[in-house]
Amino acid sequence: MLPGLMQNRPLAIIDILRFAAVAHNTQEIVSRNVDEPLWRSTYGETMKRVCQAAHGLNEYGLKAGDRISTLAWNTHRHFELFYAGPGLGLVVHTANPRLPDEHLVYTINHAGSRILLMDRNMVPIYERIRDRLETIEDVILLTDSARTNEGYKGFEDVIAGKPAQYDWPGFPEDAGAFLCYTSGTTGDPKGVLYSHRSVVLHALAAGLSGALGFSAFDVVMPGQSLYHATAWGLPFAGPINGVKFVFPCDRFDGASLQELISSEGVTFTGGVPTVWTMYLQYLRETGESPGPLERIIIGGSAVPRDMAVAFAKLGVNVQQIWGMTETSPLGVVSTPTPALAAEGEDFMNEEIWTRQGRMLFGIEMKIVDEEGVEQAHDGEQDGSLLVRGPWVLSRYYKAETEATDTDGWFDTGDVSTIDRFGFMRITDRKKDVIKSGGEWISSIDLENIAAGCPGVRVAAVAGIYHPKWEERPIMLIETHDGTELSAGDIEAFLKSRIASWWMPDRIIFEPVPLTATGKIDKKVIRDRYRDVLSG
Amino acid sequence: MLPGLMQNRPLAIIDILRFAAVAHNTQEIVSRNVDEPLWRSTYGETMKRVCQAAHGLNEYGLKAGDRISTLAWNTHRHFELFYAGPGLGLVVHTANPRLPDEHLVYTINHAGSRILLMDRNMVPIYERIRDRLETIEDVILLTDSARTNEGYKGFEDVIAGKPAQYDWPGFPEDAGAFLCYTSGTTGDPKGVLYSHRSVVLHALAAGLSGALGFSAFDVVMPGQSLYHATAWGLPFAGPINGVKFVFPCDRFDGASLQELISSEGVTFTGGVPTVWTMYLQYLRETGESPGPLERIIIGGSAVPRDMAVAFAKLGVNVQQIWGMTETSPLGVVSTPTPALAAEGEDFMNEEIWTRQGRMLFGIEMKIVDEEGVEQAHDGEQDGSLLVRGPWVLSRYYKAETEATDTDGWFDTGDVSTIDRFGFMRITDRKKDVIKSGGEWISSIDLENIAAGCPGVRVAAVAGIYHPKWEERPIMLIETHDGTELSAGDIEAFLKSRIASWWMPDRIIFEPVPLTATGKIDKKVIRDRYRDVLSG
Repeated sequence: MLPGLMQNRPLAIIDILRFAAVAHNTQEIVSRNVDEPLWRSTYGETMKRVCQAAHGLNEYGLKAGDRISTLAWNTHRHFELFYAGPGLGLVVHTANPRLPDEHLVYTINHAGSRILLMDRNMVPIYERIRDRLETIEDVILLTDSARTNEGYKGFEDVIAGKPAQYDWPGFPEDAGAFLCYTSGTTGDPKGVLYSHRSVVLHALAAGLSGALGFSAFDVVMPGQSLYHATAWGLPFAGPINGVKFVFPCDRFDGASLQELISSEGVTFTGGVPTVWTMYLQYLRETGESPGPLERIIIGGSAVPRDMAVAFAKLGVNVQQIWGMTETSPLGVVSTPTPALAAEGEDFMNEEIWTRQGRMLFGIEMKIVDEEGVEQAHDGEQDGSLLVRGPWVLSRYYKAETEATDTDGWFDTGDVSTIDRFGFMRITDRKKDVIKSGGEWISSIDLENIAAGCPGVRVAAVAGIYHPKWEERPIMLIETHDGTELSAGDIEAFLKSRIASWWMPDRIIFEPVPLTATGKIDKKVIRDRYRDVLSG
Repeated sequence: MLPGLMQNRPLAIIDILRFAAVAHNTQEIVSRNVDEPLWRSTYGETMKRVCQAAHGLNEYGLKAGDRISTLAWNTHRHFELFYAGPGLGLVVHTANPRLPDEHLVYTINHAGSRILLMDRNMVPIYERIRDRLETIEDVILLTDSARTNEGYKGFEDVIAGKPAQYDWPGFPEDAGAFLCYTSGTTGDPKGVLYSHRSVVLHALAAGLSGALGFSAFDVVMPGQSLYHATAWGLPFAGPINGVKFVFPCDRFDGASLQELISSEGVTFTGGVPTVWTMYLQYLRETGESPGPLERIIIGGSAVPRDMAVAFAKLGVNVQQIWGMTETSPLGVVSTPTPALAAEGEDFMNEEIWTRQGRMLFGIEMKIVDEEGVEQAHDGEQDGSLLVRGPWVLSRYYKAETEATDTDGWFDTGDVSTIDRFGFMRITDRKKDVIKSGGEWISSIDLENIAAGCPGVRVAAVAGIYHPKWEERPIMLIETHDGTELSAGDIEAFLKSRIASWWMPDRIIFEPVPLTATGKIDKKVIRDRYRDVLSG
């Protein structure tokens, strides 16, 4: 080959904000914060604060490649750390405060973070786990000095008086930038280490019309947490397209979201279905209108068709997305095409509402049968969904082997079809994970714990549709012959061993159905109890 | 630094078409061709033909890194070569048939191309220059077998019967893919060698709403030549976004464009101002409407304000772009922002119509004075425009030194301002280049040739506004004392030495104005004769 003669400048996350600060200098960033008045700033001012934060962080003796953990909500300071950290060559581990303490501690220790930056209302969590954190040397509260808890240092004190310029260091574009943990189907959480390259490429592709379709006239309120796969990349796709940002902190209830939507002119938001179910209910109860809101992207679980229809009636487009922490996370987004439009509006809506979405440039997909044979794109044949591309992981953090096959394909664990329109539909999901309000409950963990209860022979857990939480676990118990157990006995046993919200909504005593190969047949359980939590 | 753990799959041009063939399989590609009926195909079918072309080209014993030259119009076959060539690791040199023979021969020899692929009506050019081509081993006509000239092989014969799949080879993403020559201000044309990486990144950024803003509902007709910086990247930005393509071959007259616009539903086109001046005139004369057309991007020369206003009245948005072969070529695109909208519609239109455009993510820009000091973004101070980024060249092909300074900045040769809205305006251009109908005439070449005429002491050439061609050259001649020369004498001398369309529109005998440092003062000439060709 003949090498090209273009500039091989590394892709760098900080360049996204540097661009926005020059080309969209006065575009606004608005943020709620814990116990603080509404924050109102611009890209120009934010760039200066990010430079100050870099100077401030430098005083902690951090070096490139070091990890820092955040335990924070959707706020402007968290957003600033998304640039200051990677700008310095640090890796930002976005710790998930919804994890059980044990998993939270595991992720921070596994990341080996030296600094923990957290919102003020995370202090109780921190004080509960601090003795188990093995590598944290310093803690910074994401507050101003007036509101910093006794004995803690506030972020505004760290950056105060620092220069508003920074001479950002250069490093290769495959340098790590974000460490996001996924609670897998079993065992410890696994870390996915995004690089500058993967984040920038994902951000470019995410802004296109076939994905999020951002323009500088969009006002984007991330309704998905910044600690969930970097809020699906919005903090990077947004500034590239010059959007106004509105950060809701931790207030995802209908009234709080509606207040920001109407006062700040939010046109675009997103999140898990639970949040938007609550919002719809709020609109119904108050009779208010979604006003400026044009689009909601929903992922994390399949979008209930009724929700899409209800929003459509209010003039809001609901677009499903599918992705995983391992895919940065955008895999597919449900956006229209002329080929669908040619089939008529009803057909197009059905496709858009019932498929996870259509393919994006940058994520190769194939579905294969058990022998690895590729299946046709006919919308009928399903198979294991494999993905490949520059924002798909290659290996989990500290793992000793690749997470992909030798051709680079990553097995998503989902089973899906792909149709002739390029739309992918999940037909059977990772059977052992339950998505409750956007958080994952591992059914295998629950089964293993319940199996430890004296008298239990087999415990089987399945996720069942729930009108508010999307899914909740139910548990089937087969007892050893002659053993008498009640649901109360099982609950009492589980209570001290699991997070309270992992408790099954139903505990049912009956023989556990098995597949031909002797595995628990979750599909049969789900079919049998499909409606048990809907009433 | 800590290396990230995402897939470092190289960016590859062929992946763009592979994506479109899966995700937009039935989207159309329509093409005029020399002496052939209208071609109508799809991305799915085109991918198969590209695979067949790869098999066909393999029979010529080409190896990765080899160059092939095209001498071709905007047709589907040319488009197919844009994928088949780079897919094989070949470098496609898009030769410019409008160059004087001497320059055309120079570029093909300098590229060292082994194969020449050309449209049927290029045969006269080829037969004129064939004896001077030093490296061409084979010639393929971009025709079907029925219409191939006697003694030539046709493209359809090369690909006929070949397998419709191809196992594309892998190579580093900085491998060369396209070699585009720019006729600089002086001396020989210079080659810019685009890489797979630069082309793919440019295509991703070009599709965003701040640039071309493509969606799958767009019908894109490239009105700029495929041999001009790959038609500004449309052949790559288009398929990423699933657009329908309409290729007009070499028929850029108003009636021919209008026929395709209305019959194929073209929403988006682009080109140099000359083409769109002719199109506007056609609409005026016929009273026809631009119908489905929504946007025209215009570059190569500044857009006359009157043209933008005239199109706006017809419901068509005119957007200026600025770029160079050296910048792949998109540098800025004139798209609206909320900050401009807040100033009112008149203000916004004025900004959009009179600036070259606003900054894009991926192209860093700065303006510096003669000491290299960066100038403020106030829309007033001007300076040399320097650019940097992953789709800016680092070095000309076969040059021995970098084309950039040590920090990677490339001096565009243009002088510009940047304003607080991030919009760039060229205030003074490369003084020695004349843009006539989208083609460049080197005034220095013309001056040097004229200076060879017996009796001429100094010849000065400047570009003057021309209502049809944007600019045409005029020439000032100072004779040696006592010499008598007429305009006819000069014309007779030039005639055999230059392409006919380089002939100055006026030859004027008078003292040549000089600057303080003794250089020809083109600005004085342009001011003095500003209106001489407008009448």
